[in-house]
Amino acid sequence: MWKLLTFPLCPFSRKVRLLLGEKGIGYDLEPEAPWQRRDEFLDMNPAGQTPVMIDTSREAPPLIDSMAICEYFEETVEKASMLNGTAGDRAEIRRLVTWFDTHFYRDVTAPLLHERMEKRIVHRATPDSRVLREAMKAAVAHLDYIDYLLDYRAWVGGATMSLADLAAAAQISVTDYLGGIDWKGNEQAKRWYVGMKSRPSFRPLLAERMEGVSPPPHYEKLDL
Amino acid sequence: MWKLLTFPLCPFSRKVRLLLGEKGIGYDLEPEAPWQRRDEFLDMNPAGQTPVMIDTSREAPPLIDSMAICEYFEETVEKASMLNGTAGDRAEIRRLVTWFDTHFYRDVTAPLLHERMEKRIVHRATPDSRVLREAMKAAVAHLDYIDYLLDYRAWVGGATMSLADLAAAAQISVTDYLGGIDWKGNEQAKRWYVGMKSRPSFRPLLAERMEGVSPPPHYEKLDL
Repeated sequence: MWKLLTFPLCPFSRKVRLLLGEKGIGYDLEPEAPWQRRDEFLDMNPAGQTPVMIDTSREAPPLIDSMAICEYFEETVEKASMLNGTAGDRAEIRRLVTWFDTHFYRDVTAPLLHERMEKRIVHRATPDSRVLREAMKAAVAHLDYIDYLLDYRAWVGGATMSLADLAAAAQISVTDYLGGIDWKGNEQAKRWYVGMKSRPSFRPLLAERMEGVSPPPHYEKLDL
Repeated sequence: MWKLLTFPLCPFSRKVRLLLGEKGIGYDLEPEAPWQRRDEFLDMNPAGQTPVMIDTSREAPPLIDSMAICEYFEETVEKASMLNGTAGDRAEIRRLVTWFDTHFYRDVTAPLLHERMEKRIVHRATPDSRVLREAMKAAVAHLDYIDYLLDYRAWVGGATMSLADLAAAAQISVTDYLGGIDWKGNEQAKRWYVGMKSRPSFRPLLAERMEGVSPPPHYEKLDL
C-alpha cells in the first residue's frame, strides 16, 4: 500500500494525486507540514518538500520529487498514460509540466500560499495586499497562456489529456481555493478547468479542507 | 542537425551537453543571452530560459526545458543510457536531477551567476561579497551531500553513472568557473568530479570561455 505525505493545499501533491486517481492507484494520506521542517522528514527528504511517497508493503527508499513520482507511475502502471504520443509530444508535455510547476507556482501559487495560508496558520500575520494583487494579475496572464494553448489543441499539452493538464489543474485548484482567480474572463481555460474538476480523480481534492483556511463558495462548484 | 541555443555558463545547457556528448550526438551552438529577453526567443520559449534545441533538418517544434530535452534523447537514442536500473533507481536519479537543478542552482549557481557574471556584463556593478560568501558556504554543504551519497554508492545517483552525475557536474562546473568552490576539503566529491572532468564529453565545456569573465587557474586542470 502506498502512503502519501502531504498537506491539503500542496499543488505538487495534487498533480501526483490526480495521476494516481486517473490510474486507479490507492493510497493513504499522511499529514506533513513541510514548513515545520520536522527532523525525520528532512532526514528522509533533504529538499524538505511534499509530496513523498512510501510503499509500506516493502523495504524500498521513498519516492521523492513530484515529477520523479509521476514518471515512476507512468513507467510501472500502464493504465491511463499521461505521457502520450511521440517523443516530441512527450517533450512538449514535460515542458508544460515544468512551466506550471515552476513558473505558475513561483508567480501565483507560492505567493498566495505564503500570504493566505502560511501567514495565517504559522505567523498569525495579515496578508500583504500588494503581493496578493501581483499574484492575481499573474494568474490572469497564466490563464491567458492556457487560452492560447487551447486555441490550437484539445488539451493543454496536446491532442490528449496529459500530465500537463494535471499539473496546470493542480496549481489552479490551489490558487482557486485561496481566492486567487477571477473567473470572469478566460472562457476557454474555464471550460477546460470545469472539465478537469468534473473528473472522478478530482473530487477527493475538492472535498478536502485546509484547517483555518476556507475556500470561496464557488470552489467546489462545476458552474463557475 | 541539432542547434542548441545557449550561453557558455548556462548550467542546464551543460547538463544537456554532457548527455549529448556521452551519447555521441552532434550539435551546433547558437549564442543566446536569456537576460536580454529577445522577443523572438520569448515567442519561442515563454519561460525565457536556455537551453532550447532545434532540429534544423525538419519542421518540428523546438525542444524546451533541460529535463524534457534529456528525457527526449533518453527515449530516442539508446546509446549510453543515463536513466538506468529499476523504476525505483530511475526515480532516485530523477530526484537528484531536480535536487541539483533546483536547490544547488538556487543556493549556489544562481547567486554566483548574478554576482559574478550578470553584474559584470549587464549592470557593470561590483559583486555583493555577503551574497558571494553565502553561496560559497552553500556550495560546501552541497559538496558534503555529494560526499555523503558517495559514501554508499559508486556514483551520485546509484551504481552506474547517470543523469544525476551530469546534473551535479554541470552545476559544479559553472560554480567552479566563477570561483565559487574551495577544493580543500570534500575528498570524495573532488575525486568524483575529477573523474567527470576527464571524460571526453566534458572537454569542450572546459575549453569554452564566457566573454568578460575569466575562470580561476585550476578550472581546466585534472589535479585540483
